[in-house]
Amino acid sequence: VARTEDELIGWLRRRASGAGGERIGDDAALLPAGGPWALTTDTQIEGVHFLPGTDPRLVARRLLAVNLSDLAAVGAEPRFALAALATPAGFAHRRFLGALVAACRRHRVELVGGDLARSPVATAVLTLAGVRPPGGRWLRRGAARPGDALWLGGDVGWAAAGLELVRRGGGIERGRLVLPPSLSGDRRLAAAARRALSRHLLPAPQLELGAWLGRQRRAAAIDVSDGLSLDLGRLCRASDVGATVDADPLAADPALARLARRLDRDPLALALGGGEDYVLLFTLAPPVEPPAHFACRRIGVIDRGAGLRLSADGSVRPLAQRGWDHLAGPAAG
Amino acid sequence: VARTEDELIGWLRRRASGAGGERIGDDAALLPAGGPWALTTDTQIEGVHFLPGTDPRLVARRLLAVNLSDLAAVGAEPRFALAALATPAGFAHRRFLGALVAACRRHRVELVGGDLARSPVATAVLTLAGVRPPGGRWLRRGAARPGDALWLGGDVGWAAAGLELVRRGGGIERGRLVLPPSLSGDRRLAAAARRALSRHLLPAPQLELGAWLGRQRRAAAIDVSDGLSLDLGRLCRASDVGATVDADPLAADPALARLARRLDRDPLALALGGGEDYVLLFTLAPPVEPPAHFACRRIGVIDRGAGLRLSADGSVRPLAQRGWDHLAGPAAG
Repeated sequence: VARTEDELIGWLRRRASGAGGERIGDDAALLPAGGPWALTTDTQIEGVHFLPGTDPRLVARRLLAVNLSDLAAVGAEPRFALAALATPAGFAHRRFLGALVAACRRHRVELVGGDLARSPVATAVLTLAGVRPPGGRWLRRGAARPGDALWLGGDVGWAAAGLELVRRGGGIERGRLVLPPSLSGDRRLAAAARRALSRHLLPAPQLELGAWLGRQRRAAAIDVSDGLSLDLGRLCRASDVGATVDADPLAADPALARLARRLDRDPLALALGGGEDYVLLFTLAPPVEPPAHFACRRIGVIDRGAGLRLSADGSVRPLAQRGWDHLAGPAAG
Repeated sequence: VARTEDELIGWLRRRASGAGGERIGDDAALLPAGGPWALTTDTQIEGVHFLPGTDPRLVARRLLAVNLSDLAAVGAEPRFALAALATPAGFAHRRFLGALVAACRRHRVELVGGDLARSPVATAVLTLAGVRPPGGRWLRRGAARPGDALWLGGDVGWAAAGLELVRRGGGIERGRLVLPPSLSGDRRLAAAARRALSRHLLPAPQLELGAWLGRQRRAAAIDVSDGLSLDLGRLCRASDVGATVDADPLAADPALARLARRLDRDPLALALGGGEDYVLLFTLAPPVEPPAHFACRRIGVIDRGAGLRLSADGSVRPLAQRGWDHLAGPAAG
């Protein structure tokens, strides 16, 4: 355990050598000329975003991943990070910062600065600066137009199932996923549960997909952080359009359906309102389609009328915007 | 009180119109081409950096001020801000964000993004991006050389006296400074106490001085946030030099001396270890001197031998590095 701030920062400078460490230590991090830049900031708080007792390395990796997802959603290429860390006495700073530096290296991000403070509640805030790739455009929420196809960069609902598993005692120990005892009997269910846990604990930011979208003539994008229907509502309001979502591709995965039933949850509700999937939700004007290797799925269409609709079993009904509201908690709008 | 995140962000976009509001609302804030950039992040936590019950507007202004001081210390011109705000239920978001936007406007900073979360402890993290002025250099901690003169951008010790006054019941109410009852009798003492309180509650970042220093051929700088001796130690280690500080200009102010005595504190100890003054501590190679209107004071000299020394009453003795360590608390190194 580091005794003083200066000792810890000295350790971090050495640890992050070649990955931003040389820039650490002035009052502000000094970046090279470049840009244009995208800046984003995101927070992980003990008892809110992760359970007390969670391995600080996992918190660090997740913090970086959710921030990277925001850069993916605007089509930026990540470059620099600053970490503000406020923690109670005894917090394992080196575990956290060591894992953060390692995760940054994997994404070619330099950790260039930050702030340390004491707090009764462990709170980590990461700020990322990303650059717009040459020849790319920024992705905006407001670029959707009626007639565009609506796409998801992957499947949704898994992370919410994973959170439910964590609440029931699932997690990660010494780098291995641990299932709640009640789920370890059934092999197929256990495989689905491991997938859900890892999707919740360590989301994979879709940076390559974001970069591809930024090279298209027009695309709107947002990352699904708070819930598909809630985040789709945001994209539609920013674009002054509505959307009709097709239930079939969202409820098609038998593995998620089986796991959801075991957790007493409706799989379609998990997919529409679960949140924390950190896949990109985006629109493209047909006939443009994402390359097959991204494994995207077309889930609906942008239309002129405001609001969201769900098409299921041959009928169309209004779709409530459900998900996680950071002020109000579980939200229905 | 805002009910939902989207409602609050909508309000903020309108409120910050013309001051970054138009950039709020995508997954990351998109900056224009420019730079090179300096990035800094700083934190204010309830019960750590400010007392529970402090007016959120004051917290917002102070948060911006201490961050601007970091940009001043590298010679950057502030441009963009992101605010991460984690708060308990019932927090007056609009008071906080309204004051933050207004303070940003005064400094020509655009508030372009951020993050909202719930937390049992009100925690505000601000990230600032500043640009290097054309023709300017970055100020670094590591640029001091033996023979340089050591300067302070103003007087120190006042903010620490102000903190002591806050602990004894002083503060600000409806925009007016309120003194602890025990100090309101003596007019001269009351004037000094008001000065100390305002220095603690609302530090004035020395951006113009930082910009001037950035135009000099060589200058090292740091802002005095944690304590003069502690921050001087950091500057000296970064530059691989030592320093001898002259006690006389630090203990020369009779008003601070009187206030310190009333608070049972040694004025020189307040000046050397108090912290939170947010004036620039910097070095210049003679004969270069800061223009008189900055009201800087020369407080010593950089020398070859490592460590810090204090020259007082005709003798020189080692100077302990005292101040606030963000991991360990009050520090002596």
